[in-house]
Amino acid sequence: MKAVGIVVEYNPFHNGHLYHVTEAKKQTGADLVIAVMSGSFLQRGEPALCSKWHRTEMALANGVDLVVELPYLYSTQKAELFAKGAVTILAEMGVDFLNFGSEAGEIERFTSLVETMEQHEEAFNRLVKDRMKEGVSYPRATAEAFTQLQLDPDTLSLQEPNNILGYHYVKAIREGNYSIQASTTPRQQAHYHEQTLPQTAIASATSIRQALRKDKESGLSQTKHVMPEATFRLLINYQQTYTLLHTWEHYFPLLHYKVMASPLESLRACYECEEGLEYRVKEMMMTAVSFEDWMTKMKTKRYTWTRLQRLATHLLTNTTKEEMKAGLATPLPYIRLLGMTAAGQRYLNDTKKQRQLPLVTRFPKGEAIIAKLEERATAIYLSALPNRLKAEQIQQEFKRSPVRPH
Amino acid sequence: MKAVGIVVEYNPFHNGHLYHVTEAKKQTGADLVIAVMSGSFLQRGEPALCSKWHRTEMALANGVDLVVELPYLYSTQKAELFAKGAVTILAEMGVDFLNFGSEAGEIERFTSLVETMEQHEEAFNRLVKDRMKEGVSYPRATAEAFTQLQLDPDTLSLQEPNNILGYHYVKAIREGNYSIQASTTPRQQAHYHEQTLPQTAIASATSIRQALRKDKESGLSQTKHVMPEATFRLLINYQQTYTLLHTWEHYFPLLHYKVMASPLESLRACYECEEGLEYRVKEMMMTAVSFEDWMTKMKTKRYTWTRLQRLATHLLTNTTKEEMKAGLATPLPYIRLLGMTAAGQRYLNDTKKQRQLPLVTRFPKGEAIIAKLEERATAIYLSALPNRLKAEQIQQEFKRSPVRPH
Repeated sequence: MKAVGIVVEYNPFHNGHLYHVTEAKKQTGADLVIAVMSGSFLQRGEPALCSKWHRTEMALANGVDLVVELPYLYSTQKAELFAKGAVTILAEMGVDFLNFGSEAGEIERFTSLVETMEQHEEAFNRLVKDRMKEGVSYPRATAEAFTQLQLDPDTLSLQEPNNILGYHYVKAIREGNYSIQASTTPRQQAHYHEQTLPQTAIASATSIRQALRKDKESGLSQTKHVMPEATFRLLINYQQTYTLLHTWEHYFPLLHYKVMASPLESLRACYECEEGLEYRVKEMMMTAVSFEDWMTKMKTKRYTWTRLQRLATHLLTNTTKEEMKAGLATPLPYIRLLGMTAAGQRYLNDTKKQRQLPLVTRFPKGEAIIAKLEERATAIYLSALPNRLKAEQIQQEFKRSPVRPH
Repeated sequence: MKAVGIVVEYNPFHNGHLYHVTEAKKQTGADLVIAVMSGSFLQRGEPALCSKWHRTEMALANGVDLVVELPYLYSTQKAELFAKGAVTILAEMGVDFLNFGSEAGEIERFTSLVETMEQHEEAFNRLVKDRMKEGVSYPRATAEAFTQLQLDPDTLSLQEPNNILGYHYVKAIREGNYSIQASTTPRQQAHYHEQTLPQTAIASATSIRQALRKDKESGLSQTKHVMPEATFRLLINYQQTYTLLHTWEHYFPLLHYKVMASPLESLRACYECEEGLEYRVKEMMMTAVSFEDWMTKMKTKRYTWTRLQRLATHLLTNTTKEEMKAGLATPLPYIRLLGMTAAGQRYLNDTKKQRQLPLVTRFPKGEAIIAKLEERATAIYLSALPNRLKAEQIQQEFKRSPVRPH
């Protein structure tokens, strides 16, 4: 059995994702799709709309055969680390292919840029670093470095978020020396950052979340046409059972409390709290009336919104520089299975001997930093629920087994 | 002008307090009443029902002439430290008398016990310590030590909370060698722990808070007959303006988050987290659905409810052993004035030269530990308010001047 790996967040799973799953299988001729999916907090520094379990169900109902977890250690990171974590896990799962959605849509543009960059890496990094020291944001510094090195900027625009991720997937495969063949599916219509919900069947996850946030009453029904029926049903179910779809605003009182209760040195110890940001974090919180308000006050030319949201996530989850450093320096101790179809299970049996790492089906409590971070992030993710549900879900989380669709 | 000092929490100010203020003045013949009042968190480890400013107004409307703050450093402490802080402040304010309410009601019983105890202190402390090591709570160990030393237990029952405090006021005056004459007013009718609201005009603060908690809609109107009109009006005003009267349940989501987000070693660093309590704190929080539920789960023979509530308060305010130790070892850098009548202001002018410490009228931001603790405790106390009011009140708190009734 040949498997294609994909890296996903499914926040939530929509028709664009369904297209990607179908194309990934078709393009590669794989028998099976393996998704590595972010858990509770996502790459852009946001809580997932609903639990990893509901999102796993969405995936399994729509063509994915196996879902494994991208742990917190990697899920809320800049593209390079995020991609490295995801590719390492997919390689361990024994995938033959990796397929990713991208704005560019042609794999040659990624492989050739990765090769070019290897030759210019040092000069490029120096240029980027220098510009960032002057207060320029990373994406802009990158674009400028391209121009200065007279690299053809048309090779591949690294201003587009999915191109950046794709670039790092291809780079991680090359650096890990994995025998994984990369390919890419051009993104349909929707741009990642698009904010208004279109009438067509394909919309970006951003515009879907926007619609859900804007109108709590009818938001969900307005998005029905852009997602598979299973997603719609699972979102309704989540909202009814747990009273909400998670957004940053649900965590604002906790983040506010965290910042108010923490001395500056403890904020400074937080991962991604660099260059005296702790003063700004505290000062802006004194007057902030919502997460949006705090973020707007925090924003400068130097820091992208996403960068600041990731900082907010690490503040909320109390993740320190020290922990992250230790976690990233430790080889992965296990892979966590979130869900499987019958085909997925057959694949796991067939490939059992090839895998080096244990594939865990229960939450692995213990001393591993990766597990501690995950446990904390999950308990804090569940903190948005009403008291009774929160206690119940925290306990269930550490006992439950992977999703298996009937 | 002669002044009588009293130590108060006014949570809320009721008819029993009015009686005490009147009696304190009458018994001592003082011209003026100075109250040292706990700020946001109280001796039993609870948030105050409403802000220190509203409680200061209640006091000034009912016979108190000056209100100064008992800082967080002393306000949420066992009787000995609480009393020491309060007496030190009253001494600095130049009071001639100190009057306290007590169950015993005769000052000789306090002074004679303090004298007796000085002779037996070492043996007594050893007995108490040994019993506590065996898992017995402090109040019970104390009572047993009395019996064993064949001290007459009828001298003064230290099982009664106001007797304990009174004992420590008298002891602190003696140890500080202050020229303050202590006297006591017998408590009227209500026992401190009484939980049902009586029909008479005097009820305990505990029974009043109980009534307010039980019935959010009509709780306030049921308590009208046991408090002065000004208290009633101020409580109504607070509830309408800030949407709540503070109880522990309002802080439960924050405490839950704090415990979930903190590694064991950070819980262990918290003040009053002794003897491995951090494990119990975390374990019981995993299943707790309310503050009451968590406390019930936490409770053992060894720890009184109050002791555990104080731990909860220090966890919530993120107060460490190290900070408390440093704070308690530092001489008081200032006294903070919360409010004054015209008579109170005259007294301040008259006694200006006698005072050693600055009397501050704005919140003294700065490096002093006592100020840092106060700033944090207050910001966290205000965290129970809705987002917009919270931001507004946090800013106002650090700018406002003392209350002056018209």
